[in-house]
Amino acid sequence: MTAQQPVPEPKHKVVLQPTGRSGLVAEGTTLLEAARQLGVGIEAICGGHETCNKCMVQVEEGLFAKHDIHSSASHLTPISERERAFLQRGDMPPGYRFSCTAKVMGDVLLTVPEESRAQKQVVLKAASGRAIDLDPIIRLYYVALDAPKAGDDADRQRVLNALHERFGLEEVEFDYPALRELSEILRSASGAVTLTVWDGRLVIRVQPAYHEQPVGLAVDVGSTTLAAYLCDLRTGDLLATATAMNPQVTYGDDIMSRISYAVEQSSGLARLHRAIIRALNELAQEASEQVGLKAEDIVDMTLVGNSVMHHLVLNLNPRPLGAAPFIPTVQDAVDLRAADIGLKFHPGARLHILPLEAGFVGADNVGVILSEQPHKQDKNMLVIDVGTNGELLLGNRERLLCTSSPTGPALEGAQVTHGMRAAPGAIERIRIDPQTLSVRFKVIGEDLWSDELPDSAIQARGICGSGILEAVVEMYRAGVVQRSGRFDRKVDASRLSRSRLSRSRLSRSRLTRLDNINAFVIAEAEQTAGGTAIVVSQRDVRNIQLAKAALYVGAQLLMRELGVDKVDRIVLAGAFGNVIDPYYAIALGMIPDCALDKVSSAGNAAGDGARIALLDKGMRAEAADVARWVEHVDQPLEDEFQDLFMAALSFP
Amino acid sequence: MTAQQPVPEPKHKVVLQPTGRSGLVAEGTTLLEAARQLGVGIEAICGGHETCNKCMVQVEEGLFAKHDIHSSASHLTPISERERAFLQRGDMPPGYRFSCTAKVMGDVLLTVPEESRAQKQVVLKAASGRAIDLDPIIRLYYVALDAPKAGDDADRQRVLNALHERFGLEEVEFDYPALRELSEILRSASGAVTLTVWDGRLVIRVQPAYHEQPVGLAVDVGSTTLAAYLCDLRTGDLLATATAMNPQVTYGDDIMSRISYAVEQSSGLARLHRAIIRALNELAQEASEQVGLKAEDIVDMTLVGNSVMHHLVLNLNPRPLGAAPFIPTVQDAVDLRAADIGLKFHPGARLHILPLEAGFVGADNVGVILSEQPHKQDKNMLVIDVGTNGELLLGNRERLLCTSSPTGPALEGAQVTHGMRAAPGAIERIRIDPQTLSVRFKVIGEDLWSDELPDSAIQARGICGSGILEAVVEMYRAGVVQRSGRFDRKVDASRLSRSRLSRSRLSRSRLTRLDNINAFVIAEAEQTAGGTAIVVSQRDVRNIQLAKAALYVGAQLLMRELGVDKVDRIVLAGAFGNVIDPYYAIALGMIPDCALDKVSSAGNAAGDGARIALLDKGMRAEAADVARWVEHVDQPLEDEFQDLFMAALSFP
Repeated sequence: MTAQQPVPEPKHKVVLQPTGRSGLVAEGTTLLEAARQLGVGIEAICGGHETCNKCMVQVEEGLFAKHDIHSSASHLTPISERERAFLQRGDMPPGYRFSCTAKVMGDVLLTVPEESRAQKQVVLKAASGRAIDLDPIIRLYYVALDAPKAGDDADRQRVLNALHERFGLEEVEFDYPALRELSEILRSASGAVTLTVWDGRLVIRVQPAYHEQPVGLAVDVGSTTLAAYLCDLRTGDLLATATAMNPQVTYGDDIMSRISYAVEQSSGLARLHRAIIRALNELAQEASEQVGLKAEDIVDMTLVGNSVMHHLVLNLNPRPLGAAPFIPTVQDAVDLRAADIGLKFHPGARLHILPLEAGFVGADNVGVILSEQPHKQDKNMLVIDVGTNGELLLGNRERLLCTSSPTGPALEGAQVTHGMRAAPGAIERIRIDPQTLSVRFKVIGEDLWSDELPDSAIQARGICGSGILEAVVEMYRAGVVQRSGRFDRKVDASRLSRSRLSRSRLSRSRLTRLDNINAFVIAEAEQTAGGTAIVVSQRDVRNIQLAKAALYVGAQLLMRELGVDKVDRIVLAGAFGNVIDPYYAIALGMIPDCALDKVSSAGNAAGDGARIALLDKGMRAEAADVARWVEHVDQPLEDEFQDLFMAALSFP
Repeated sequence: MTAQQPVPEPKHKVVLQPTGRSGLVAEGTTLLEAARQLGVGIEAICGGHETCNKCMVQVEEGLFAKHDIHSSASHLTPISERERAFLQRGDMPPGYRFSCTAKVMGDVLLTVPEESRAQKQVVLKAASGRAIDLDPIIRLYYVALDAPKAGDDADRQRVLNALHERFGLEEVEFDYPALRELSEILRSASGAVTLTVWDGRLVIRVQPAYHEQPVGLAVDVGSTTLAAYLCDLRTGDLLATATAMNPQVTYGDDIMSRISYAVEQSSGLARLHRAIIRALNELAQEASEQVGLKAEDIVDMTLVGNSVMHHLVLNLNPRPLGAAPFIPTVQDAVDLRAADIGLKFHPGARLHILPLEAGFVGADNVGVILSEQPHKQDKNMLVIDVGTNGELLLGNRERLLCTSSPTGPALEGAQVTHGMRAAPGAIERIRIDPQTLSVRFKVIGEDLWSDELPDSAIQARGICGSGILEAVVEMYRAGVVQRSGRFDRKVDASRLSRSRLSRSRLSRSRLTRLDNINAFVIAEAEQTAGGTAIVVSQRDVRNIQLAKAALYVGAQLLMRELGVDKVDRIVLAGAFGNVIDPYYAIALGMIPDCALDKVSSAGNAAGDGARIALLDKGMRAEAADVARWVEHVDQPLEDEFQDLFMAALSFP
């Protein structure tokens, strides 16, 4: 070698807690960069501008610098003016430093607090404690450009240069909506802008000055119910939830009738597509306004739904889903600009639609898998996602089966006499005294039961899915309906004669007729907002029977295919109401026999899966894998299905 | 090694003419694949479906198969039914084969005719014979999918699989507009579809059955004049040309006034943007209809324009271009969906906007470079692109300088009393007899001169750029205007007395006054469509003087910066009229001294550059390089500019 060897830079030992990682780094390295070199990401939106204050670390100086336990000055560069201001205001605890500012000048032991870590964990469900990695596909980057001089690069290039120099981002492109707003915002903000970057490679938004809250929306599009979850993509916080009926119900109750409408009606597809897009825009607006934001602040969206909802959202004709060989237009995940399908978020906002499985088992079930993780269990787990199109999963890490069952919308409160979606005023819990047939119930939005409140304070408005399910079980247990599901009119008279001490209302007949159909009164006229009694009719009971039988048959089918006669755990999921009480699901005969303590309720697992994919981009890849791996089980031939179905209609 | 060695396939020698490439290929290889392996691309849209008939090659059997000179059967697989049909109909010459069908079974000598080559050359300009490589970023691929069976992949995946298997395309994605139309078209066409693929990686269109004509539009957006060229992207043919005035002229004549309008008027930017987009849509429709197509058939577009036009097309505020330090929002090439800026082509159509150079020297000048190639010359070439914003280039392969000069719209027929754009009825050539002041002229759309036609047949409508230029020179040569540009009223009377033999018209005075300004009559009332004389006024002469002086000063500036006192070659370009006659450009003092035979006229070189980038994707990369490499020369300080400018105003 003829070239002179450069003098090696002095290196110092850096130890990082709580991971315990350690190694040598060159003198003068920022703590931020040192941690990165040792494999620990520290959050820093501003990349060293001392603006975001996300990168504070605790310096455990004593261990390494015993000669000076009052200061870390000897092993780190001196405290900056801005750090001093933070310390004095109490915004930074003593012994902390900005890791983007302090540079290694000697050996140091650092503790990176949880909130400063780039890859945090967030608890998704308070009840189960389920935690996920926070690694969103959207990241914010703050850059402060100098005023341009003659001969400087164009604005776009100057921003890309800053992203490269400060954050190491390479081959980044500007999406057109971000390009459009770039120069005006750059000038109005004197060069200090926050860039919203998708997947480390596409600038989709430019905001003036410093920002730290990118907002995303996770959406579950059910045949009957829509649920939207507004999330802070940096903290993982659930900011707001909004639900609504799917306005497509006007055009048909279930997926088959939606397909028919799209295929047979002129502009049918366009109408169905516009209806769902309008509803999604309204949901986004509603959720945003709850926390003082606008829909235009949304920069990322994940969406799940069954195959038909998926196609209708994408404005794809669902015709091929309605007839053999049931081939969708696209099965893999779809990434596009949200504006491409008419969503009025930020014009550069992205949309990720999770992959479909097969048949009608769609991206919603992929969401359920991400949320409940049957594919990571040793024992067999049965997951039943209750919806108008019910979807079931059975299996474990070795093999996972899925199928769908045409449940109908009854369990979501539709096609039920006084059904409604799970919203304030909906009856969600019901108890019937078998002796007196007296009824007590609880409505959403009120903690007390109906018998603990004056009638006029109850203001019931209808029955939601979980309420109708409990009502039917209680009516069966009280003898109001027989095992076959048929009303027993004699029971009313016999109970009335038994309840001598009853108050006036209890002595009234609970049995009534509505449009010439037998019905049972759940809430009397005085207890309702509308001033009309809320009832469950013979037809409602039949609809619930059809729904529960469909789910039961679906579970039997998967068990037979997997070769098991019992399952180890059952998870009930669904966006259809409050969480299902497992006791009632068993009592109704909706699920296979299983010890009550092995049955749990997961709420809207499909929606949770959408949230997971929104907050952790790695789970989008996992979703792609699992969607290809899960095996679809076809519904049995008609004759066999009828036999199984008829047997499942009665109550257990 | 424990595994058995596979028996090696027999190989045969294949020689390709006219390239002379040769090599061994495995028995059973198609001629298409064999040629590809030897580095010669053969066109095949259908990838072996015997549908496109583009891949015919001549088999020179005799040389290799002397034992059987009547048939190539022994060295190739037998002729297919479809080939036989083609031979019998005379659609394929004897001795030819489909290279996608015929397989190598022995040594063969093939001749690949020019029309079967994948990378053809096309002659861009008949006059100069300039040829370019035909390698468009858009390619068509025909695939014929089997009817799907239960369990098959989704439509999108099946198409991607076919693109991979038949054409070797990998990592292809579907753009949303193509996804939208995929399934319906696939079904209506029984699986046989033609895919329009951008850059080998994005499916942007799906068409039923076989197609072979992808259509693109190259557009030059000038401050005053718009020109659009509709091209067949497979053959390189120019299908149609359409030109129009830039409707933005309503909001200001030149780029500075457009910037002012965008900055100062409420919704000024939106109005300017909408106006140009509407005009481009109309041009696209007009050009398409000329050849029985629709604007929706356009799948690719390239666009050039100066920096301000570029920003207005992209709906970017041109404000920063109007004041120091003159930093554009984006300088590099921009790729986006044409629909993003409101162009109503195929919804998946792409748009490539060429890069800017610097200052006001924009993508139009990059187009000029691609067309005229000063950067590939040994000697110094001066290229003057005449437009409302004139752009000049000077240099060679070592160094290339550019600048812009505010020419004003006079040379495009705007701000001229009877100016009009180069359209039928425009006077494009003018001759004035210095003895009699009699005028003869030629209008666009008519091969004969005015003195060869009866007055009523002439129907002149105005004067276009090249006409006004010639008029001013001829008026100067005839003494109608003085060297300073001032009208000489005495001349008229003296000539009239001299022309005793004149017909009645010639004896009329050619000098007149219009709005109290001196004017010279070019076409008399009887010769015009409007019934009113067409004149050139004192003010028109002044405008032409200002324009030519601006260009002359620009050229001087570049020469000084390059350190040369003469140039070796001059190219005059511009979309402003018919091609400029070099003689008149010199006589007007618009260009530096140069031997007449070294001055040539290139027509709309910027538009030609857009066409080149449309037809050869490699030239897009070259454009990016050259845009960064060319050096921008600023206009001199005001005092110095004024001195140079004043000196350049007079006629030589």
